Order: sequence, then structure tokens, then C-alpha cells
Amino acid sequence: MDQKRVIEIKKSITAANDEVASQFRAARAAESTFFVDVMASPGAGKTTLLLALIAELRARGVNSDSLGVIEADLESDVDALKIKEAGVTSVELNTRGVCHVEMGMVEMAFKAFDGTKFDYLFLENIGNLVCPADFDTGAHTRVMLLSVPEGWDKVMKYPPMFAAVDALIVTKCDYLPLNPDFDMERLKERARVLNPTLEIFVTSARTGEGIPELADWLQAQRAAKVAQ
Amino acid sequence: MDQKRVIEIKKSITAANDEVASQFRAARAAESTFFVDVMASPGAGKTTLLLALIAELRARGVNSDSLGVIEADLESDVDALKIKEAGVTSVELNTRGVCHVEMGMVEMAFKAFDGTKFDYLFLENIGNLVCPADFDTGAHTRVMLLSVPEGWDKVMKYPPMFAAVDALIVTKCDYLPLNPDFDMERLKERARVLNPTLEIFVTSARTGEGIPELADWLQAQRAAKVAQ
Repeated sequence: MDQKRVIEIKKSITAANDEVASQFRAARAAESTFFVDVMASPGAGKTTLLLALIAELRARGVNSDSLGVIEADLESDVDALKIKEAGVTSVELNTRGVCHVEMGMVEMAFKAFDGTKFDYLFLENIGNLVCPADFDTGAHTRVMLLSVPEGWDKVMKYPPMFAAVDALIVTKCDYLPLNPDFDMERLKERARVLNPTLEIFVTSARTGEGIPELADWLQAQRAAKVAQ
Repeated sequence: MDQKRVIEIKKSITAANDEVASQFRAARAAESTFFVDVMASPGAGKTTLLLALIAELRARGVNSDSLGVIEADLESDVDALKIKEAGVTSVELNTRGVCHVEMGMVEMAFKAFDGTKFDYLFLENIGNLVCPADFDTGAHTRVMLLSVPEGWDKVMKYPPMFAAVDALIVTKCDYLPLNPDFDMERLKERARVLNPTLEIFVTSARTGEGIPELADWLQAQRAAKVAQ
């Protein structure tokens, strides 16, 4: 199969996906649902960060009933159960081995909420720093996590993801003392070369560092992007 | 694009790839080159483990000239330079955004060694716990790394990778005291349900734990799988 044909197939798949994504994004905005796509490597701390964010939003008066999470995984319901245990509605989206989430899957998962209206809807995407960057999921805001144990140099190796998102959230910063080679300044500098408008947050769900700043930003994004 | 058509295209791509992979594997075995595919999430410690293994093999009398590494990344030469600094021949394979390595890329990288004969040739695959599992790279032995900070439950979420490899190498076990939730016994148990013949090594490149045992096993694999 020659490279050109592969690229052509890829383009036709993503063009169809993009159109459905735009419609989905507009429909959610009209009904005041702010939709956030959360992407990262496996084990970067997506579920743990979501739990910390949910707690922070609740402390600010956001009602639990107005928070929803779509938990995507190749298989298993491990994360969906963690979110449910925190008292938040979640839908488990098993891709059965597919490496990213696309609109057919988002729509199916969304239907499973059965008409519930959310103020904040999160998609925890497949743990994969490559493929999800290529597929618009209909979100208003896309964020990526990079955990300190992964190393700062991932910005050199996985540039499409850093270019695709609105915010980079550095997680597990309580591990910084153990990772003296983690060069936060070079990470920020390289990330902003790829993406000049990128917001960057340095967080630890364990200590709570950076979570209020992230919640401030998400609330401002919601105010700017969906009907109030 | 319906699901069936996607699966058919995927099958035809992997069938062609598998045939080239089998030929490549046989050719390397005949010339005594043992080829190992190393897969993992971004930041699981592939390059660091390779450097520790290379040092261990050298200490056992393996000549530096008989060690080679193909360093695959979406972009950048960060890892290829680290291997070269250690005095080992490496070829940088940039996939320009492609999420896995397939045979066309392996053959191109191999040609760049210009006829050099190796006893051990390693492929550091793209940092991705999903897609590389689907593509035979012509290796005699495939291994995956799972780092302690990623969490033991990845075995529930990324089963195809655990099923595809000959060995699971748990890395960064010096982080275990910081991760009391990392359940090594459940990880081993679940991994062996997916893959009953799986070898499991618990390692730390920092402390050296588990590296000699891994080198023992690789030397035995080489003796069993390629011409001596």
C-alpha cells in the first residue's frame, strides 16, 4: 500500500469526522454544555486529575449532577467505576482495541446519558500520545497531560499532540525532586515553539498544587465558549 | 466508513507486513543477528533500560561493535544521540507522525547500517501502548515495558500489548515506595491470564535491579533463536 493512498484514506476519514465534530460542538454549546477532551500517555494521571478537578469544581458550587465523564479505554471499566464512586455520572466507552476516539463513538457514548444536561462534560480519551491528536472529538477545549516521570523531552518526540491542544497540564509534579533531569523551562519553551498560545499548568493531584488555577481557566473557557 | 471495511483494510495491510517480517526474521537468524523489539508507553524508560542492558552485555564480554539500535520516534534524534554517546551504532528512524513501526521502515533503517553484522539488534519502537502491538517488526523476541508510575492497572486497559509480547519488563521499580497502590501480584496474575507463557522481570535501571536476570534471559533467547 503506497504512502499516498494511506494519506488519502486518512484525509477522507478525518474530513467526515470533522464535520460531525463541528455539529456536535455547536449543539453542546447551544445547550450550555462545555465539553473537554483530556488526552495523555497511559498512566499520566488522567482519572486522578479529573477526580481532583471534580472536587475543586464542587467546592466552587458546581452541582455533581451537572458534571459528566465519558471514560474511553480499549477495554475494562476500571476508570468509569472510579468516577462513579466519586458520585459523578460516567459512561464507559470501550473501543475494543481502537487506538483513539472518533465522533461515532462520542455520539454513542453521549446518547447513553439519555438526555441528561451537563455544565461540564469530560472525555477521558485513550491513553495514547499519538493517534488521538488526529481526531476531532467535538470538544470545545482539548488538553493534554504530561507526567513528570515521563520526562520533559516528550515535547521533542510527540510534537503533533503538543500542537493540537489548548493546554498542557504537567502532572505528578510531586515527583520533581526524584527527577532532577526534568527541565521545566525547556519543556515550556519547546512547547510554545510548537504552539504559541498554549496555556501551561503545573499540577499535582496528590498535593493539590495547580488545581485551583486549572479550574479558574476551565471556568473562564466555559464562559467564553458556550451559551450561559 | 463501515467497521467491516476498516477491518478488511487493516487485515490486508498486516498480512503483507507479516510476510516481509517473516523473511526479515529468517534472514537475520541465518546471519546470527538476534533482533529484539522494545515497546512501551512514552516515558516508560526504553532508552534508559537499553543503556543499562548494553552496559551489562558489554560487562559479559559482548563487543560494542556487535550491538546495534534502531531508534524510532515520530520526530527528533534525542534517543539516537544518547545511544551513540554510549558508543553503540544507532540509526534514527523518524516515522513523521506515524504511530507504529512496520516492515518498510525496519528495512529502510536496517539498510542504513550498511551491511554491519550485529549479535544483538534492538528496535526502540514508538512510545505507544496500543498500535505497535498490531505490527510484526520482524523481531525474534518482543518485549514491553511498564513503568511503576504508570500504575499496575494498565494490564486491564491495554490487553493486546500484554498478549503480543514474550516478556513484560516492569521498570522504575525504585519508585515502588512512592506508589503503594502498585499491586505487583495482581499485575502478574492478570498479565498471565492474557499470556500464560509471559516472562516477567522487575527492574530499575537506576539501581541495577533485575538487569542481570534480563540479560541472562536475552542471551538464552539469542542462543535458542538464531544461528550460532
